[in-house]
Amino acid sequence: MTGTASRPTLEAVAARAGVSRATASRVVNGGDGVREPLVERVRRAVEELGYVPNQAARSLVTRRHDAVAVVIAEPETRVFADPFFALQLRGISKELTAHDSQLVLLLTEGRDDHVRVGRYLAGGHVDGALVFSLHLDDPLPGLIHGAGVPTVFGGRPGWGDGPRDAVPTVYVDCDNRGGARDAVRHLVGLGRTRIAHITGPLDQTSAADRLDGFRDVMVDVDPALIAEGDFTPAGGERAMRELLERRPDVDAVFAANDLSAAGALRVLRERGRRVPDDVAVIGFDDMLPVAEQTDPPLTTVRQDIEEIGRLMARLLLRRLDRAADEGPVGAPSSVVLPTTLVRRASA
Amino acid sequence: MTGTASRPTLEAVAARAGVSRATASRVVNGGDGVREPLVERVRRAVEELGYVPNQAARSLVTRRHDAVAVVIAEPETRVFADPFFALQLRGISKELTAHDSQLVLLLTEGRDDHVRVGRYLAGGHVDGALVFSLHLDDPLPGLIHGAGVPTVFGGRPGWGDGPRDAVPTVYVDCDNRGGARDAVRHLVGLGRTRIAHITGPLDQTSAADRLDGFRDVMVDVDPALIAEGDFTPAGGERAMRELLERRPDVDAVFAANDLSAAGALRVLRERGRRVPDDVAVIGFDDMLPVAEQTDPPLTTVRQDIEEIGRLMARLLLRRLDRAADEGPVGAPSSVVLPTTLVRRASA
Repeated sequence: MTGTASRPTLEAVAARAGVSRATASRVVNGGDGVREPLVERVRRAVEELGYVPNQAARSLVTRRHDAVAVVIAEPETRVFADPFFALQLRGISKELTAHDSQLVLLLTEGRDDHVRVGRYLAGGHVDGALVFSLHLDDPLPGLIHGAGVPTVFGGRPGWGDGPRDAVPTVYVDCDNRGGARDAVRHLVGLGRTRIAHITGPLDQTSAADRLDGFRDVMVDVDPALIAEGDFTPAGGERAMRELLERRPDVDAVFAANDLSAAGALRVLRERGRRVPDDVAVIGFDDMLPVAEQTDPPLTTVRQDIEEIGRLMARLLLRRLDRAADEGPVGAPSSVVLPTTLVRRASA
Repeated sequence: MTGTASRPTLEAVAARAGVSRATASRVVNGGDGVREPLVERVRRAVEELGYVPNQAARSLVTRRHDAVAVVIAEPETRVFADPFFALQLRGISKELTAHDSQLVLLLTEGRDDHVRVGRYLAGGHVDGALVFSLHLDDPLPGLIHGAGVPTVFGGRPGWGDGPRDAVPTVYVDCDNRGGARDAVRHLVGLGRTRIAHITGPLDQTSAADRLDGFRDVMVDVDPALIAEGDFTPAGGERAMRELLERRPDVDAVFAANDLSAAGALRVLRERGRRVPDDVAVIGFDDMLPVAEQTDPPLTTVRQDIEEIGRLMARLLLRRLDRAADEGPVGAPSSVVLPTTLVRRASA
């Protein structure tokens, strides 16, 4: 399997299948008008010989690789520890597969490796990129911009909705602020008055927007009722301990995601606080099975994470088609999906 | 971010950093002999401008992309559900990052997508490939062979140790058969006489080898004591139910991996069988935290999954270096790592 191994040719496929070269070519290139038994024979020959069409040569003509890069601006360890990413990738994978486009996931150990990711994107290996979990000081957007590949972002990027260098930013997100408002209003409706918030990492817009939503309802809130988390269960535990220390009278918590809510629930149980009687708890995401398996099961703000992934891929593919057909034209616009409050036992 | 956006040039970087083009070039291309404050200024300019070296042009000279593909012959959903893959990827990622090589994970929905993976590999986008979780009838090896990229396999491929088309197959694996023998001998040493085996999917060599190890010790075993699983907790539950039905007198179970052992433990508890008093249970992998969190904690055969990933990457990189230095020469040979029995409470 070195570079010197000779590749099977289309002629060899045709000979093995007992058909003409033209017929073999039609089958391999997805054309119509070949009878099913012949298609079957060619396919079998392709598989037996391990024939692969010369994609590099074909790319030179079409300038398409039928491949889309996915970049998650988190270290590889978090990508596999947080089910959020698996869900988003599932949506992306289904959509790309349906369009016979290869999902190319570029993993990194950390932010230091983003220059290398930019290099790969600039190297002409993919048609476009899907990027998510950006942080405010991330070098990635600049690198992607430099690489000149069409991109759709998961989550509103931190530089705002407006155009950047005359190229409109396209993203898919849920209504983080509105969802947060719904959660806090629900707690207010339960008669709670000392409502705390465990934030996500505030260098991400999703976390900042959820905090804004909390403040929309809790105007003039005591700052001691806001503790910074990081979207992980351990961060939720830490934040809950801080809150109990600063405001032992806290009677409700809105956590910025389900994982940190799960951490908060563990600390409350440890301290003998009953949920929801003493402290009501709401999360965000409706991440399954997490949200159903907490004790008690979690009331939360649902967003359709898999659908966000699917939409990201769909918008990018549409953009690539347009680019191929008409040259660079206006990109499709961003999409913000609504959220819904899911009531379980915790609030 | 369309193809028409003009990329920042090296000249622009030099101007922004207030250094000569030659100095900027030396920093960008990793050369020595530039003073630290200047290096810092160039790096900042690179980041601010989003400059990306023209990798495509560079690849033409070096014929290297500094990128390695990872292909897991399982659907994307299993890749994210089974911590085995995350561990192996962690080892691979660390090793590739240390050599500034980009990890390119090619995800699929299923086996039907492998032809597309072969196309991407043949397209000249990566220097080599790391492939794991092959199944016997997988079209992937033929496609990879056809793509002509140097490859290292995780787990012994099903076509044996010998050369295939004069190219030696290089793989990294653990001693599946020896580890299985150790597990079963331990059960025999505990005085158990009706020892069952829950297999993995038998179209994978790891599962077939563990079954062979079981048979090495349990010569002439009653076939009713062997139930086929699939390396998942659900498969372990199913197999355990079958075993209890066929041989209610079973007094020990060797499960082919920890996840299926966890499933078996759940069924045993459900049926009121005490572990290890009534039925002793051993797993394989020492997958943490799973193996420590089962009830009771799991006695198991430890293999160093992360190290296998690291070694796969190391062997491939060595092979690529050799190929660059000396042309196609003999590849490094395969590595089989030893296993160790880890005793916890279940056996």
